[in-house]
Amino acid sequence: MLREEYDHIVLLAHGSPDPLWKQPFESLYQQIAQSYGAKGISLAYMELTSPSLEDVIAGLTSDVRKVAVLPLFFAVGRHLRKDVPAQIETLQTEQLTISLLPPIGDDELVKQAMMSVVASHLGRA
Amino acid sequence: MLREEYDHIVLLAHGSPDPLWKQPFESLYQQIAQSYGAKGISLAYMELTSPSLEDVIAGLTSDVRKVAVLPLFFAVGRHLRKDVPAQIETLQTEQLTISLLPPIGDDELVKQAMMSVVASHLGRA
Repeated sequence: MLREEYDHIVLLAHGSPDPLWKQPFESLYQQIAQSYGAKGISLAYMELTSPSLEDVIAGLTSDVRKVAVLPLFFAVGRHLRKDVPAQIETLQTEQLTISLLPPIGDDELVKQAMMSVVASHLGRA
Repeated sequence: MLREEYDHIVLLAHGSPDPLWKQPFESLYQQIAQSYGAKGISLAYMELTSPSLEDVIAGLTSDVRKVAVLPLFFAVGRHLRKDVPAQIETLQTEQLTISLLPPIGDDELVKQAMMSVVASHLGRA
């Protein structure tokens, strides 16, 4: 798979009023940080849970020029079509480009994994 | 992986006011139906998008006794802790057991796939 390269990736989850909700995202982030190093990767939430995308962008060092936001979402709805692009628009500067990637659930690898999980529940895997 | 077996699996997505949002879920469902057959699998939405869980359960044939609801969610929040169990409670009968499975995003296979996607974006895969 050919991917563009970025200085920093922000994993962006939705956020929830439920404090326990964020646990699997934190855990995924920890696993990623352990496997690939925490440098260059952050976790942020679109709303209701901190840190926000704004917090994370504000904390980047000045050598970071190209950021990708990878939504931990299954599908593109109003949030990824309007709200997040609007947030990104206000956070971009001449020195900092922020790109919004397709949602992780739309990735072929993740879809294949979801299919396998369903198949195993059906006793067909 | 050892999984309990069910007569029918309902893939349950959140639902959205955005009509385009459901497309990846419908597409995942189509792929699953093509690969494993549509028999024994349905797709439903918790809110805002149809069909609802209630619609799908009402359409099951009478030989279906054990249903599993597999949430197409990343994490357990209020919806999976309260709203969906309450829906299930009202839909269960003496003839029909409905079990709520953990969210698909919490499955090790899906987490590994998400890690691979992140790694590839970081140029480390």
